[in-house]
Amino acid sequence: MQAEIVCIGTELLLGRIVNSNAAYLSKKLASLGIDVFHHTTVGDNHTRLFTVLKRAMHRSDIVIATGGLGPTVDDITLEIVAQVIERNLSLNPVVLKDIKEHFHKRHIPMPKANLRQALIPKGAKVLKNEVGTAPGLIIPFDKKVLIALPGVPKEMKPMMKHDVIVYLAKHFAGNWVIVSRSVKTTGLAESQVNQKVKDILKIKPPVTVGIYTHTDSVDLNITAKAKNKRQAQKLIAPVERKICSRLKEHIYGKDGETLEEVVAQGLRKGKKTLAVAESCTGGLIAKRLTNISGSSKYFPLGLVAYSNQAKQTLLSISPETLKKYGAVSKEVARQMALNIRQLAKTNLGLGITGIAGPTGATKDKPLGLVYIALATPHKIFSQEFHFHGDRSSVRQRASQAALDILRQHL
Amino acid sequence: MQAEIVCIGTELLLGRIVNSNAAYLSKKLASLGIDVFHHTTVGDNHTRLFTVLKRAMHRSDIVIATGGLGPTVDDITLEIVAQVIERNLSLNPVVLKDIKEHFHKRHIPMPKANLRQALIPKGAKVLKNEVGTAPGLIIPFDKKVLIALPGVPKEMKPMMKHDVIVYLAKHFAGNWVIVSRSVKTTGLAESQVNQKVKDILKIKPPVTVGIYTHTDSVDLNITAKAKNKRQAQKLIAPVERKICSRLKEHIYGKDGETLEEVVAQGLRKGKKTLAVAESCTGGLIAKRLTNISGSSKYFPLGLVAYSNQAKQTLLSISPETLKKYGAVSKEVARQMALNIRQLAKTNLGLGITGIAGPTGATKDKPLGLVYIALATPHKIFSQEFHFHGDRSSVRQRASQAALDILRQHL
Repeated sequence: MQAEIVCIGTELLLGRIVNSNAAYLSKKLASLGIDVFHHTTVGDNHTRLFTVLKRAMHRSDIVIATGGLGPTVDDITLEIVAQVIERNLSLNPVVLKDIKEHFHKRHIPMPKANLRQALIPKGAKVLKNEVGTAPGLIIPFDKKVLIALPGVPKEMKPMMKHDVIVYLAKHFAGNWVIVSRSVKTTGLAESQVNQKVKDILKIKPPVTVGIYTHTDSVDLNITAKAKNKRQAQKLIAPVERKICSRLKEHIYGKDGETLEEVVAQGLRKGKKTLAVAESCTGGLIAKRLTNISGSSKYFPLGLVAYSNQAKQTLLSISPETLKKYGAVSKEVARQMALNIRQLAKTNLGLGITGIAGPTGATKDKPLGLVYIALATPHKIFSQEFHFHGDRSSVRQRASQAALDILRQHL
Repeated sequence: MQAEIVCIGTELLLGRIVNSNAAYLSKKLASLGIDVFHHTTVGDNHTRLFTVLKRAMHRSDIVIATGGLGPTVDDITLEIVAQVIERNLSLNPVVLKDIKEHFHKRHIPMPKANLRQALIPKGAKVLKNEVGTAPGLIIPFDKKVLIALPGVPKEMKPMMKHDVIVYLAKHFAGNWVIVSRSVKTTGLAESQVNQKVKDILKIKPPVTVGIYTHTDSVDLNITAKAKNKRQAQKLIAPVERKICSRLKEHIYGKDGETLEEVVAQGLRKGKKTLAVAESCTGGLIAKRLTNISGSSKYFPLGLVAYSNQAKQTLLSISPETLKKYGAVSKEVARQMALNIRQLAKTNLGLGITGIAGPTGATKDKPLGLVYIALATPHKIFSQEFHFHGDRSSVRQRASQAALDILRQHL
């Protein structure tokens, strides 16, 4: 079974809207074990839309089209769909009634233009739109199916989630499911991860493994196709174990887990509390720690000491240290960690200082230089980092490294 | 001149990533007056990628492909591009040097896999990647051009913005341009903005106006098509004036401006300094203020007082106040603003406390209740807000409201 997605709308081609529908629909199809091989976006143009839909119906078993079902003259999807499958349009009384009701509820008379939305290709199963006026359509055709859904995500999603998924599971999904598992690492570059798991990446279906790189995380996704969820998980397990044995301590989480969630779990389990003194990350570490609801239990205090003055008065960093080593130095990071820990009376204290750029770099202290220190009841660690990228990337990577030091300690 | 965009990556077809590149590239092409007629997404599959690129080169003058330029075996774009244009790959010494330098800077030896990234089709103009290792390519071919860019937005965007735009403007741009102007508002719901500018939204080409809603901003985009930039700007100006006269103080910025940038300008111009005491936003306001390079000039101190203990000891909020009014109260927000101002010896002090959820809400203090206070040398303002949405939306909206109070004061 092959599927493809056709998104219709000139506003997409102009870049005014980011196409989130294609990803949403693909995820839903993947969960049914249906492969998606193409996404195509095309404008509200007769010839090009006809060509794209015709090609899609030729090469795929399932075609989901979104957009172009509105009431304006720009909206030509129904007309072109009818041409592609060579069927006539006819006024559908059920759809017309729904549209009239939609306006009635809002105490507005139905504009004449909306009549067009009730002209439906023959043989189509109609999906009710609970939010707007454009109906959805499921049109079985030559053992294939053409599905047309509204382009507005709020109108499209309920139809996909409730009606289309059920229809496809019954008629097309066959007996397959696709299950994915993601192993997330930090502290290694993509190429270093690649080096360690090169052979595993070459694994053949029904299990596949891919690398996905984000600013602060390199993830390995294991995907398996099988008769049922349990069997898929059985295929995934040995591959996951192998990956874990290669990447070891660099793995901070699985699937949707974030590093701050993992750190939060560690703090909660160890009944430890934490305070953070930030300079270059400017509150980002505190912000990430407090992404977690209930974080006040273990994170009483964050301090953004952005000026030397604040470092001196609130964090008691001595002017001599600042002068001798500079604000961006191992010594200052260590004092920040020690003193915030004392100030907040927590088990752990984290200090971070660096040069996020684009200004502030010198020859000795280049852009991306960051010092991170962690003070515990027994000792104090510190580490020097060199991050690359723009201000936002350096700050993101620095916050990730700091949280990862915490995770590894916990 | 017709252009199209081909996005390459199985992760896009699986719906794991929303394709934001296509919209970004389309916008840039539109600004040159170049029409984009198709977006296609295809996986890391030899046959399908070849077919898609071959068709694209046949029907369009300009093809921009993104993705598949990484160092792993999955990354096959260079290989397939070479097949489509029937040219050989050869090791490019400049690219190789750049890649080696990239690793050298990070004190990592270059993994062997990265050699693949320096195998470039003959006749290609190479674009340097300032962020990662994948180079960009501009390959003139039969009066057409095939452009290959990295899939990671942070690597792709600088190449598009700096190199590709210049190249296309010189060789391909037509006789008219599209200019866009964006007017950004906060503090009003989309429907409220809509109500105020309903008639302006109906304006006819060559000028069009659209509403775009984000978590913390409702933006109006004015777009004009004309023979040159100046003429387009002349068409936009009266529409922009009309919009501004309707939305007045709700407008915080234009085009790419962020609210934190506008606040930064205000602080710098007024030679004012600011300290922030945060509870519910947990460092997000400090993080946003320090998004701006050089913010230590006016933002010496941020305090994330997430526990009552920290509020008492560091911000000197009296236990009585906390007990009588609760941590989420107008009184506590005011004391936070006053005391952080005194502590940091700044002109302005901002205090914020609220319930970001999902836990912590009570009948009297519902989820989304937020108090924001601003202390100036002369007086203290405070305001109560009710934000909707999940934890992340409430925090984003609360930080936006706080920065907007600052902007309006400045």
